[in-house]
Amino acid sequence: MTELRRTADVGIARLDVDRAARTGTPEVVYAAGKTPEQTVTCLAGLLDAGAGPGGGAFAWATRVDAPTAAAVRARWPEAGVDEAARIAWVGELPAPVGRVLVLTAGTSDGPVAAEVAATLAASGVGCARVDDVGVAGVHRVLAVADDLAACDAVVVVAGMDGALPSVVAGLTDRLVVAVPTSVGYGAAFDGLAALLTMLTACAPGVLVVNIDNGFGAGVAAARIVHTLRHGDRPRDQR
Amino acid sequence: MTELRRTADVGIARLDVDRAARTGTPEVVYAAGKTPEQTVTCLAGLLDAGAGPGGGAFAWATRVDAPTAAAVRARWPEAGVDEAARIAWVGELPAPVGRVLVLTAGTSDGPVAAEVAATLAASGVGCARVDDVGVAGVHRVLAVADDLAACDAVVVVAGMDGALPSVVAGLTDRLVVAVPTSVGYGAAFDGLAALLTMLTACAPGVLVVNIDNGFGAGVAAARIVHTLRHGDRPRDQR
Amino acid sequence: MTELRRTADVGIARLDVDRAARTGTPEVVYAAGKTPEQTVTCLAGLLDAGAGPGGGAFAWATRVDAPTAAAVRARWPEAGVDEAARIAWVGELPAPVGRVLVLTAGTSDGPVAAEVAATLAASGVGCARVDDVGVAGVHRVLAVADDLAACDAVVVVAGMDGALPSVVAGLTDRLVVAVPTSVGYGAAFDGLAALLTMLTACAPGVLVVNIDNGFGAGVAAARIVHTLRHGDRPRDQR
Amino acid sequence: MTELRRTADVGIARLDVDRAARTGTPEVVYAAGKTPEQTVTCLAGLLDAGAGPGGGAFAWATRVDAPTAAAVRARWPEAGVDEAARIAWVGELPAPVGRVLVLTAGTSDGPVAAEVAATLAASGVGCARVDDVGVAGVHRVLAVADDLAACDAVVVVAGMDGALPSVVAGLTDRLVVAVPTSVGYGAAFDGLAALLTMLTACAPGVLVVNIDNGFGAGVAAARIVHTLRHGDRPRDQR
Amino acid sequence: MTELRRTADVGIARLDVDRAARTGTPEVVYAAGKTPEQTVTCLAGLLDAGAGPGGGAFAWATRVDAPTAAAVRARWPEAGVDEAARIAWVGELPAPVGRVLVLTAGTSDGPVAAEVAATLAASGVGCARVDDVGVAGVHRVLAVADDLAACDAVVVVAGMDGALPSVVAGLTDRLVVAVPTSVGYGAAFDGLAALLTMLTACAPGVLVVNIDNGFGAGVAAARIVHTLRHGDRPRDQR
Amino acid sequence: MTELRRTADVGIARLDVDRAARTGTPEVVYAAGKTPEQTVTCLAGLLDAGAGPGGGAFAWATRVDAPTAAAVRARWPEAGVDEAARIAWVGELPAPVGRVLVLTAGTSDGPVAAEVAATLAASGVGCARVDDVGVAGVHRVLAVADDLAACDAVVVVAGMDGALPSVVAGLTDRLVVAVPTSVGYGAAFDGLAALLTMLTACAPGVLVVNIDNGFGAGVAAARIVHTLRHGDRPRDQR
Amino acid sequence: MTELRRTADVGIARLDVDRAARTGTPEVVYAAGKTPEQTVTCLAGLLDAGAGPGGGAFAWATRVDAPTAAAVRARWPEAGVDEAARIAWVGELPAPVGRVLVLTAGTSDGPVAAEVAATLAASGVGCARVDDVGVAGVHRVLAVADDLAACDAVVVVAGMDGALPSVVAGLTDRLVVAVPTSVGYGAAFDGLAALLTMLTACAPGVLVVNIDNGFGAGVAAARIVHTLRHGDRPRDQR
Amino acid sequence: MTELRRTADVGIARLDVDRAARTGTPEVVYAAGKTPEQTVTCLAGLLDAGAGPGGGAFAWATRVDAPTAAAVRARWPEAGVDEAARIAWVGELPAPVGRVLVLTAGTSDGPVAAEVAATLAASGVGCARVDDVGVAGVHRVLAVADDLAACDAVVVVAGMDGALPSVVAGLTDRLVVAVPTSVGYGAAFDGLAALLTMLTACAPGVLVVNIDNGFGAGVAAARIVHTLRHGDRPRDQR
Repeated sequence: MTELRRTADVGIARLDVDRAARTGTPEVVYAAGKTPEQTVTCLAGLLDAGAGPGGGAFAWATRVDAPTAAAVRARWPEAGVDEAARIAWVGELPAPVGRVLVLTAGTSDGPVAAEVAATLAASGVGCARVDDVGVAGVHRVLAVADDLAACDAVVVVAGMDGALPSVVAGLTDRLVVAVPTSVGYGAAFDGLAALLTMLTACAPGVLVVNIDNGFGAGVAAARIVHTLRHGDRPRDQR
Repeated sequence: MTELRRTADVGIARLDVDRAARTGTPEVVYAAGKTPEQTVTCLAGLLDAGAGPGGGAFAWATRVDAPTAAAVRARWPEAGVDEAARIAWVGELPAPVGRVLVLTAGTSDGPVAAEVAATLAASGVGCARVDDVGVAGVHRVLAVADDLAACDAVVVVAGMDGALPSVVAGLTDRLVVAVPTSVGYGAAFDGLAALLTMLTACAPGVLVVNIDNGFGAGVAAARIVHTLRHGDRPRDQR
Repeated sequence: MTELRRTADVGIARLDVDRAARTGTPEVVYAAGKTPEQTVTCLAGLLDAGAGPGGGAFAWATRVDAPTAAAVRARWPEAGVDEAARIAWVGELPAPVGRVLVLTAGTSDGPVAAEVAATLAASGVGCARVDDVGVAGVHRVLAVADDLAACDAVVVVAGMDGALPSVVAGLTDRLVVAVPTSVGYGAAFDGLAALLTMLTACAPGVLVVNIDNGFGAGVAAARIVHTLRHGDRPRDQR
Repeated sequence: MTELRRTADVGIARLDVDRAARTGTPEVVYAAGKTPEQTVTCLAGLLDAGAGPGGGAFAWATRVDAPTAAAVRARWPEAGVDEAARIAWVGELPAPVGRVLVLTAGTSDGPVAAEVAATLAASGVGCARVDDVGVAGVHRVLAVADDLAACDAVVVVAGMDGALPSVVAGLTDRLVVAVPTSVGYGAAFDGLAALLTMLTACAPGVLVVNIDNGFGAGVAAARIVHTLRHGDRPRDQR
Repeated sequence: MTELRRTADVGIARLDVDRAARTGTPEVVYAAGKTPEQTVTCLAGLLDAGAGPGGGAFAWATRVDAPTAAAVRARWPEAGVDEAARIAWVGELPAPVGRVLVLTAGTSDGPVAAEVAATLAASGVGCARVDDVGVAGVHRVLAVADDLAACDAVVVVAGMDGALPSVVAGLTDRLVVAVPTSVGYGAAFDGLAALLTMLTACAPGVLVVNIDNGFGAGVAAARIVHTLRHGDRPRDQR
Repeated sequence: MTELRRTADVGIARLDVDRAARTGTPEVVYAAGKTPEQTVTCLAGLLDAGAGPGGGAFAWATRVDAPTAAAVRARWPEAGVDEAARIAWVGELPAPVGRVLVLTAGTSDGPVAAEVAATLAASGVGCARVDDVGVAGVHRVLAVADDLAACDAVVVVAGMDGALPSVVAGLTDRLVVAVPTSVGYGAAFDGLAALLTMLTACAPGVLVVNIDNGFGAGVAAARIVHTLRHGDRPRDQR
Repeated sequence: MTELRRTADVGIARLDVDRAARTGTPEVVYAAGKTPEQTVTCLAGLLDAGAGPGGGAFAWATRVDAPTAAAVRARWPEAGVDEAARIAWVGELPAPVGRVLVLTAGTSDGPVAAEVAATLAASGVGCARVDDVGVAGVHRVLAVADDLAACDAVVVVAGMDGALPSVVAGLTDRLVVAVPTSVGYGAAFDGLAALLTMLTACAPGVLVVNIDNGFGAGVAAARIVHTLRHGDRPRDQR
Repeated sequence: MTELRRTADVGIARLDVDRAARTGTPEVVYAAGKTPEQTVTCLAGLLDAGAGPGGGAFAWATRVDAPTAAAVRARWPEAGVDEAARIAWVGELPAPVGRVLVLTAGTSDGPVAAEVAATLAASGVGCARVDDVGVAGVHRVLAVADDLAACDAVVVVAGMDGALPSVVAGLTDRLVVAVPTSVGYGAAFDGLAALLTMLTACAPGVLVVNIDNGFGAGVAAARIVHTLRHGDRPRDQR
């Protein structure tokens, strides 16, 4: 691993150029708290260094607001921007392998699910999405049984009571990645209620990410798919 | 209402003798934080004052531990004690009317459900109980559809993720009273997770009581049944 | 219940068309976090599917801001909008039955009480409202005794210390639904203080909904009235 | 004030000998977290230094458990111990002046009220106590109107919902000192609910001390009475 | 007290007309969460009803923003407005009696101290104010010793660490009313840090109000002064 | 899936017999909050129903204390008990496939790691464990690089600051399951600090379970391995 | 010390003129919550009083927004303003001695690091800054080993998981001052997660300041350097 | 630094043998959560590996309870145990250099101060201790001015309101390390109140450690002294 420690210094940042080689996901620029110019500088540094998968020219950023999206497009007219997901990228998206099922409890959870989907796309993983299957009409959950059986992993996005992952994890043998969202008000406490629900899910096999962290859920699901697909399984223990 | 304000002073307490007449539920002795002797004194005061329904000789206490139960039985050998529910009473239990369905998510929620049931019994309300129908095996919830249709109100008792009321409230048109329990550990935060889940339930029609408050849920459900059964409906508005 | 599981897929949502039949309250569109167009799309889908009571053409939305209200009116000029309550509806309001008493502790709690009232109206339940009866002048509470006696259920809306439901529940035998509001500052913690007060009310029979959740309180109160009025009481237990 | 800064060093503590002269209340030994021997050492140091009112031989301790009480009595057989209040003192109690009304919401709040009363006694202030006047039977509060009119200040001790001070402060023109107690469970959060209620009381004129801090409430009430009784009023401003 | 229960119904509010007679402080209009018109309506109702001290024509409002202040002045050109304190009043201010010392820890605590001062003025109580005596330069606190000796009560306003009341209460025998402010950032948690500091002050005799609640502190201090000055002291207990 | 809904009613519980078939993990008995007898009853019910993998006679329980372990052994002398992990099982452990790497930050995290390992064993998954590689000596983390490369997934168990998963996830492309533990004191808040750290890990690909929830982490890791090993990959999307 | 207690009264503030002499850092104006005019008044007062080091004409302010910066420059055209750090100063910056290493975990932590650096500059202490060395690429931390060896103290600025100080403190024998930042979202809780991580760092020798408090970290680091450089070491104990 | 990475594997732990060489403080065994045998095993491993300062035979443990202390003494009769501090060590204590002043606010803070002192002793640093100088008698703080002037750094230990560091930091130019303790009750929240107070101290130059973390404060103070005394100051920056 010693050789996978290159750093590209662009003044405001020390870019972790070999992160894709080490972890399977290229370094991403977190645009929140950065000026549009800073985000562009970081993206350019990643492109120059070949920080994409396989050393390719690919770079991306999350939490991209409108001014930053405009700055990215001004610099790279061919850049892709998913406005719902607030993700921008420069370079070719990889061909998708595998299939991750992304479920939302309600329509208002859509932007976070979009971030999951865009992260999967940028990671070269296939994605199937079914929206608005909240447990208040639990038959809608039961209706996705075939989708559950035909995927590598499930990502469940839910706000308010965050109850959906508990039900889903009782219906499938695939890993369930739960994303609490800040949808709701009052005792939802900006996603805290859903977060606690998911952490205490009565069905085991639920793993949780930060509130509204569609990016993290996407990266984790991509790790699962890539582990599955690489073919180089470690030998069994003992 | 002026006339319903009698108070019985027993030194350590000023008993609200007319509470049954005003609110439908006789004053109850909260035994936590009281010595066994104090609880016995309060019960005796209520019996002497005729603070039971219809001015009868009935008195009860909640959160009764073993020493207090023994003290009650020593004074009134005929007293009833529900050890699981930690409720003791002296006097005749009223004949039950109506039917409240009490559901638990898991076996560990049993003591709280017992408190609900004992409160209903002391309030003269019928109770049907189905245990261990948590959403990790959601078909167990679907299996109680007939029970849901045949009751006046539903009380749902659940700890950990507290997700059960959300599912139940989407399956019935009866009022759902949700009781979070302190079952669980870590991020369950002694029932806080379940409490927040229930307060933010994505299905409307869920009403919530304090953590482990089976007594409060029972009183509320009894109010519903008594309102239904009294026959003296107010005239429609307008 | 198997037959009550129709879903209308409108792209951004899977509408729970039979919710009125199952639960007594038609599916509602939660407009917060949706664009005006998305809300209109969902309302149209509900109207098309006959998701109102009795399969009628009725649809509604909560948390409707001004742009969404304008979009609704542009599409359906006959739509009703209650601006204080932030509720919009399309279709005929049902004739009200029963009577729910709605109390507020202060004038600033008015918008939440308006949401209760509008929800009751959309649910076909009668409503009587008395404002500004906070416990700082407790005689104002005592003055509503006749109203308490003449209703099916009480909804109490209060912010700051949230003390009003404790007093009211000691004065009546009807169910008390308590709605904490975010009125107040500092240690009110956006309604948390009132929420905790209501959950720990020393008078039993108080049931609580989420902070500012007038909609949930209205639905719950409507369930009580509809259970009362349906006439098809279940047989007594045992 | 320069002269009021004597310190008595007893090894484990630097006793603030002149505190009575400066603040009206002699330094008190907080026995929690101290061994019985340490508490006795501190009391002896205060007695030796003449740290009581007027330089007299008086010393006291709060949060005194049984072993510490025994150690105090072993050293000073004439010592007074109020077991309910967990307060011990050595020396003559001063003659009481003034009258502070101490109210409790329930019997379980008794130990904290006992600490208030014992603190007042040790401070030379008269005390009238009325227990169990919780707002669930609000007529019990109204019944103390005469007591409210005949006191210098009111101390209200309440756990659970902590609603009593709001009602009391709307009925009197005297200062209301509110003491939240840890009575209750679940969302009472060991007194936090009552604390927040009292801090956000809708009736102004409520001042709050720490949870279960009967000592602090007693000292504050004593300050009010002593200010009233000293006769040396400052001249009016302007 | 029965006679002091008049209520003036102005549609949006039920004004507690006799509050001045009962509690010494006239009902105040809490303008936050009200429209300018609603505040004006309430003020007019109070003036019409003679809800001021002694039945006089006096009315006031707190948390008054600029539009509401303008509306008040448009209706009553003679109205007083203290912009720093965000308090408006109509009618004659009473002549001040007594003297309350108001201290601030820093200049940024000024607006809350202004609310204290304006409340005292509207309550007919004299006020002396010394600003910026925070404990980081503790000699500044020691310098107010003469002021402490010449007042009826002290109000201490402090944000950030909220440490000032602990020091002040060790220097005086007057009651110390502590007002935590939301000054600060990060772990100040909008005043929570200062609030907890004050509640746990190691010097007894500190009483606490809600964060930024200068109004409540002023009312409480006024109660002390009025109790002192009324001359009609209750007889000593026993 | 309709056929996988068998329930075994053992009085105190409705056992979800087909959970292994549906989700890959047999229903487990959560022994906390149950009497030893209740746990034995549930285990017997699961054995009778053939609720193990492939319908076999296997049953297990978590959070098993000493009395419960004794009761299990009394009933089934051949039962296995892992005391560190507090897990008991009856029936044959399946042969392990795959390899999950379990890391701990410190020796005190050992019991939780034991629960992970025992859960993996009961799930038929291989496990390699390396203890005490906390980031205070970060070279210890770097030393496990070969282990990271030779596993299917990583489980990281850490208390106090919970910083280990952030470092590990930057060194590997495998999924990192993070388990916060309640090791620590003060601001560790019984595991809350570690939980928040893990949820906000600056390295993506970290998924989190409840505090001290070794069982949940083990089940999730087993799901990953079983998905990998089943061979029946779903077809790629699109 | 008696002589170091001068106070300059400028109406809105009582400036602690001798603070530089007492504590090594001149009194600073906290501009948040002050009007631009108030900040200018305070700065002028400090300049007039000679409140800078050695009694010189130096004054400064933190949390300076754009309008305040403009007001300062209008009054003193020669004033320095560091916009990233939000610090303004009037007078000569002292020559720097010593060297403090300032590390950031990410680019978004830059503004807080700028406040550290500007505080050091105003305190006459040298500063070396290395940005973006977060633990997700831990080799970036290892790469600063030489910098760690060549400094007097280290300040580590980090948001999100706040894990960097734990790693750094295990690599150096210098004091590590940790500054949590509010960078992040969801369970980062505006810096709370990073704060708790740092307080529970598994590597000892980490000291923590308030969230985003670059100023406090800079002052503390300056104290260390000045203690080192003054040469007047106290004699060894014993 | 590459050479300073030796690890001693003792089965239950991977001891960081070179930590003293890297960080100045030898690895310490955290005995909480370990069995007495595990602690002995770790100590033996550290002794064998020469993990003390300069490669010497020295090892120590914190949070040592009575059974563990007995086990340590059984193995090494010459071991030192400070029972108040709960620290045990084997090997020669180094000769002390420098002087750290340790202050406590009250006698109950003594055990934590003992942990600071024992940590300093084990680190070869001199310590002067002054107890019980809380701000309720602020002249006691002023009385330590000479001690403040004659030390290298100050450690302030305080519970309840935690106000002492704010006052001390305004009186000295030395670094102030603040240790909040869990002394207090109610809103002290087991040390949280003191922690927040110290983090928001209005006097800059205060650095904070975890609640009750005397060990961490001692290590940090030792780092300061050792940096001062090593003589090998880095060259000034620029």
